[in-house]
Amino acid sequence: MKIGLIINIKRPDAFKVARGVIDWLTKEGDYCLVMETEAAIAMGYEGLGADPIEMQSVDLILAMGGDGTLLHTVRVIDGKSIPILGINLGSLGFLTEITENEIYSILKNILQGHYQLEKRMMLSIKVVRQGSAPVRFKALNEAVITESEIARMINLKVSIDAEYLTTYRADGLIISTPTGSTAYSLSAGGPIVVPQLRLLMLTPVCPHTLTARPMIIPESSRITIDVIAAQSILTIDGQQAYSLRLNDRVEIERAEEETCLIKPQQCGFYEVLRNKLKWGGGIAG
Amino acid sequence: MKIGLIINIKRPDAFKVARGVIDWLTKEGDYCLVMETEAAIAMGYEGLGADPIEMQSVDLILAMGGDGTLLHTVRVIDGKSIPILGINLGSLGFLTEITENEIYSILKNILQGHYQLEKRMMLSIKVVRQGSAPVRFKALNEAVITESEIARMINLKVSIDAEYLTTYRADGLIISTPTGSTAYSLSAGGPIVVPQLRLLMLTPVCPHTLTARPMIIPESSRITIDVIAAQSILTIDGQQAYSLRLNDRVEIERAEEETCLIKPQQCGFYEVLRNKLKWGGGIAG
Amino acid sequence: MKIGLIINIKRPDAFKVARGVIDWLTKEGDYCLVMETEAAIAMGYEGLGADPIEMQSVDLILAMGGDGTLLHTVRVIDGKSIPILGINLGSLGFLTEITENEIYSILKNILQGHYQLEKRMMLSIKVVRQGSAPVRFKALNEAVITESEIARMINLKVSIDAEYLTTYRADGLIISTPTGSTAYSLSAGGPIVVPQLRLLMLTPVCPHTLTARPMIIPESSRITIDVIAAQSILTIDGQQAYSLRLNDRVEIERAEEETCLIKPQQCGFYEVLRNKLKWGGGIAG
Amino acid sequence: MKIGLIINIKRPDAFKVARGVIDWLTKEGDYCLVMETEAAIAMGYEGLGADPIEMQSVDLILAMGGDGTLLHTVRVIDGKSIPILGINLGSLGFLTEITENEIYSILKNILQGHYQLEKRMMLSIKVVRQGSAPVRFKALNEAVITESEIARMINLKVSIDAEYLTTYRADGLIISTPTGSTAYSLSAGGPIVVPQLRLLMLTPVCPHTLTARPMIIPESSRITIDVIAAQSILTIDGQQAYSLRLNDRVEIERAEEETCLIKPQQCGFYEVLRNKLKWGGGIAG
Repeated sequence: MKIGLIINIKRPDAFKVARGVIDWLTKEGDYCLVMETEAAIAMGYEGLGADPIEMQSVDLILAMGGDGTLLHTVRVIDGKSIPILGINLGSLGFLTEITENEIYSILKNILQGHYQLEKRMMLSIKVVRQGSAPVRFKALNEAVITESEIARMINLKVSIDAEYLTTYRADGLIISTPTGSTAYSLSAGGPIVVPQLRLLMLTPVCPHTLTARPMIIPESSRITIDVIAAQSILTIDGQQAYSLRLNDRVEIERAEEETCLIKPQQCGFYEVLRNKLKWGGGIAG
Repeated sequence: MKIGLIINIKRPDAFKVARGVIDWLTKEGDYCLVMETEAAIAMGYEGLGADPIEMQSVDLILAMGGDGTLLHTVRVIDGKSIPILGINLGSLGFLTEITENEIYSILKNILQGHYQLEKRMMLSIKVVRQGSAPVRFKALNEAVITESEIARMINLKVSIDAEYLTTYRADGLIISTPTGSTAYSLSAGGPIVVPQLRLLMLTPVCPHTLTARPMIIPESSRITIDVIAAQSILTIDGQQAYSLRLNDRVEIERAEEETCLIKPQQCGFYEVLRNKLKWGGGIAG
Repeated sequence: MKIGLIINIKRPDAFKVARGVIDWLTKEGDYCLVMETEAAIAMGYEGLGADPIEMQSVDLILAMGGDGTLLHTVRVIDGKSIPILGINLGSLGFLTEITENEIYSILKNILQGHYQLEKRMMLSIKVVRQGSAPVRFKALNEAVITESEIARMINLKVSIDAEYLTTYRADGLIISTPTGSTAYSLSAGGPIVVPQLRLLMLTPVCPHTLTARPMIIPESSRITIDVIAAQSILTIDGQQAYSLRLNDRVEIERAEEETCLIKPQQCGFYEVLRNKLKWGGGIAG
Repeated sequence: MKIGLIINIKRPDAFKVARGVIDWLTKEGDYCLVMETEAAIAMGYEGLGADPIEMQSVDLILAMGGDGTLLHTVRVIDGKSIPILGINLGSLGFLTEITENEIYSILKNILQGHYQLEKRMMLSIKVVRQGSAPVRFKALNEAVITESEIARMINLKVSIDAEYLTTYRADGLIISTPTGSTAYSLSAGGPIVVPQLRLLMLTPVCPHTLTARPMIIPESSRITIDVIAAQSILTIDGQQAYSLRLNDRVEIERAEEETCLIKPQQCGFYEVLRNKLKWGGGIAG
């Protein structure tokens, strides 16, 4: 069994936890451990360093950090459906629910095959530019198109399944999965969506009109966005940025693959919500 | 073939249109026409009057009025899956898309069986009160629970599939279908949902906290609402009101039946949205 | 010196605190104490009972309860500019900042004349009905007009200084002072206004349009609201309700009097905000 | 009398209108006309070219373009209190209300001294960086601080009059005048403020918390913003951008000068609102 370790090397506490996990795994059984080259060097485990292709061939991934580390993991494995256990080193995460203290008891179960997977839909994003090969991305949370210049406003002509929807004049447009509903879309005014659902959401950022609203469309929809602005940026899961040009077309649809999160099931989504969003108290306390 | 006519008798123009349709149908073929007793008397067609049970046995319904008339129709047929053609006598409706001018060409096609049905999910609502038989409703748009007194705020303890969600302190709570997303939920800040989707939405009305947000949950969810307020009202599709008491429990889930709207397909949902919500123009015009 | 006590008789803890205060004041000096008849009877201090007119002639008021008790106090003294000390018996209030523990040290200072007054603007509301004498109210937080029937939506034609503004189609309309900005208006989506400001705010409740927004207008504005709905209710500070009829006209402007809150100045408005609204933490904690 | 002409040289129609106005003014009297060098060259009026200092010494300014041109004008004259007539060449503007057709009749009155000025408050912005001289700006609409990098979120510690308010985690923060309330702040969810008011408004852009709300504070407030992010940008009226560094401090208060708009008074603010924001129609039409 080959286990990949993704470690947020900007967090000193991640090193300590990762060392503990590596020691434990080494004692526990005959596992092949790999990690990203950069992390391997930073931690002094040069022998465990692996290139991206190798990272994508593991049987299980342990992601140690926070929700950002998990989004980075999805990028490293290019959205492949490898079971991921998110270990949260800071405050409770939406994607990384287990804490340092729970690691070993949960790992024991996982290594014996006792775990449940929660599958999350992803986006497949394609940028089409005349005269170039299309560029492709996958996103677990969202794809965002924003203006890159001082003049914030952007014009985006959006069609769904080849039917014209509207032309957004806004700071930007978020195309989000249910998982992404509690990320950037929430800041931009979007609703909360239970992550097991299968649908796509369009949330405009600071629309330059009072009539735009977040919009929920079927998972089968193919969204086509024509960029009518000189300089704009496509951002994937807050992790990757890609410069768009005038007349570029961005096509977004549901990805075939799904992200596979290992759920130790201590904590339901509604409980996470209450904690993260501080629900339960009124203004008057 | 038995055809039911639902006519908004508060609109004088509905009479004229209804008379035209009745004359046309009479000439066109051997149809059995029925209408609600009150409308039949108001229009002088006493012979066509039918009780609710009979109205629920027709093969086709023509609803003449606006979106409110269509919601009334759903109530009259108790949510049964009878094909309904909504004829709009005023401004473009979300549910009633065809206009007076288009009636006869469309009716001709429908009577020859040339039409498409768009199925819309509905809510099944049950009010459980100790010592009483449960009371049941069906809703195409939404169920709303609000306070009935001067003190506007209400406390509603909500669970989903027996998992505690939160206790809303708010003016009210809307449980909406996708179809209802462009009705009261939209006024309360909810997102727009493509009506063919299958999901449930909870939208609080004036929540007494800054952290509440509209919430999208799976269609399979069973929502349980415990009323922790002395005097509150359950409203169904803006058509029926039912007084709730302290300790009443309201259970809401997807109804088995679906409303069957006849779609002449001139107009897609996105086009209706652009028209109804005046999309397309920025603040600066 | 004549001191009025306003006690929230629905809160058992208020009795205990009130008895303590009465005992302390009796020992401390030769003060004439009065309270509302109902409270006097409930507490067994029948001799201290006073009618509303007498309550309006006191030199100082101690309001024991919460923000609601303070709004009740404003009503009892008909908005007169008598110094009010709000003593909070529960969670921190926007209007009642001092707690049980601080009462006696603060009272000592106040009785020696050592205190600062914070003046808050109020609304003067007049309902004009043909053939009747106008009815008048004063509000510290807000005046709200809502529909009283199952059909929630109301039509309100609003002019400001005789210039037509718009006709609101909404669940209701809130006309608020800066003090009221953290009350019902906040639930309806209004901004937070520093209470020392002098301005008027119009916040629609669930407007049946996407283009309505809260609106800030000068304190000198005279707002005229024509009621174009059969059955609606005017609510004052969540304390008084008055049934409006079709064609009633509601005129709202700044009141001449101001509410005088005694500020012990431990706590600035921004600190209260951070506490009450749970500011300071992001979603990610 | 010296008249400055500010012309949006990106709009071809502005040239035609400007030529007409120059011809008319030349015939009408003995006026000294000046314009920005770039515009003078573009239009072939090299003799009228003037440097910024000279542009700031005129008696009257005619700004031909849209609201953006008027904001540019304020920048050119460095916020000096010179009467400005905004001539709108496109759709109705909030700042530029008169149209091409009305120019000459209105100009005639203005040149005879028959006009009213509407004074609008401005912001004075100072950027303090250790070891550098402070940099100063003036804004008629707003100052905005945003993140300049792919990671959108910014941390801004805000104090008002040296009292700590909160630390915003957001895409950005808008500090706006009443005039600016219908500009970027409106897109970010801010209320509408009658422009004659005197107050300051803080509107967070996509706050990474559900509890942030637009906030109205007194015009006398001094806002201090400590930048706790490596790379952020200060934008003034959407016209000027200035790169901020970690530990820069931005101080914002009301400017001493006010912008002086010439109001031909055909059109009140509420009428402009109804037109620009498409008020008046409900969702149901």
